[in-house]
Amino acid sequence: MTTKHLPTLCPKFEQAFIMIGKKWNGMIIHSLFEEPLRFCQLRDSINGISDRVLTERLRELNELGVLEKIEQENAGNQVIAYTLTDKGHELEPTLKLLHSWADDWVEPSPVRN
Amino acid sequence: MTTKHLPTLCPKFEQAFIMIGKKWNGMIIHSLFEEPLRFCQLRDSINGISDRVLTERLRELNELGVLEKIEQENAGNQVIAYTLTDKGHELEPTLKLLHSWADDWVEPSPVRN
Repeated sequence: MTTKHLPTLCPKFEQAFIMIGKKWNGMIIHSLFEEPLRFCQLRDSINGISDRVLTERLRELNELGVLEKIEQENAGNQVIAYTLTDKGHELEPTLKLLHSWADDWVEPSPVRN
Repeated sequence: MTTKHLPTLCPKFEQAFIMIGKKWNGMIIHSLFEEPLRFCQLRDSINGISDRVLTERLRELNELGVLEKIEQENAGNQVIAYTLTDKGHELEPTLKLLHSWADDWVEPSPVRN
């Protein structure tokens, strides 16, 4: 029986799986494809996320270089918004394909965590 | 401040994220793109997975319809192998894009779980 050697199963690939699969990360990245959003806009666009968890995920995704904070003007005030970096934007084709696959194949029933 | 409504952030999409992101699932699916593999071939191709966890993941991915068991002949004996279903094979473009993204962007350092 042969042992297969799969050079593509590299640690970087595993890190990408973990990042994408971690609960809410895909939703957060997906929400930011179109435009930068403020914290409360992000929270309102993602059904069920708490302030604490959103804060934590935004910090992690910022540390990973997927998104960054910017300042926006809102009614004369400077407010903080979140925007994708190039690294984050380049996930768009992957997430769109995954979304299309889910539309075609996934039954809307729970997966065990 | 407006609330964004993102109809694409559906439960099916979330299920897909959870499935893809769950540790080892992406590796198992990726390993099976080329050809069916027996349990020991799969275990040997995925660095660090235990028999117990591989058994559990194979059962889950089978229940999700991503892979199935088949019988193969090996030296005159019928042995069990695992092969992707159509649902599993259709993840190939997504995983290839994610792999390419990881090659370009991911630093080989740990992500917090």
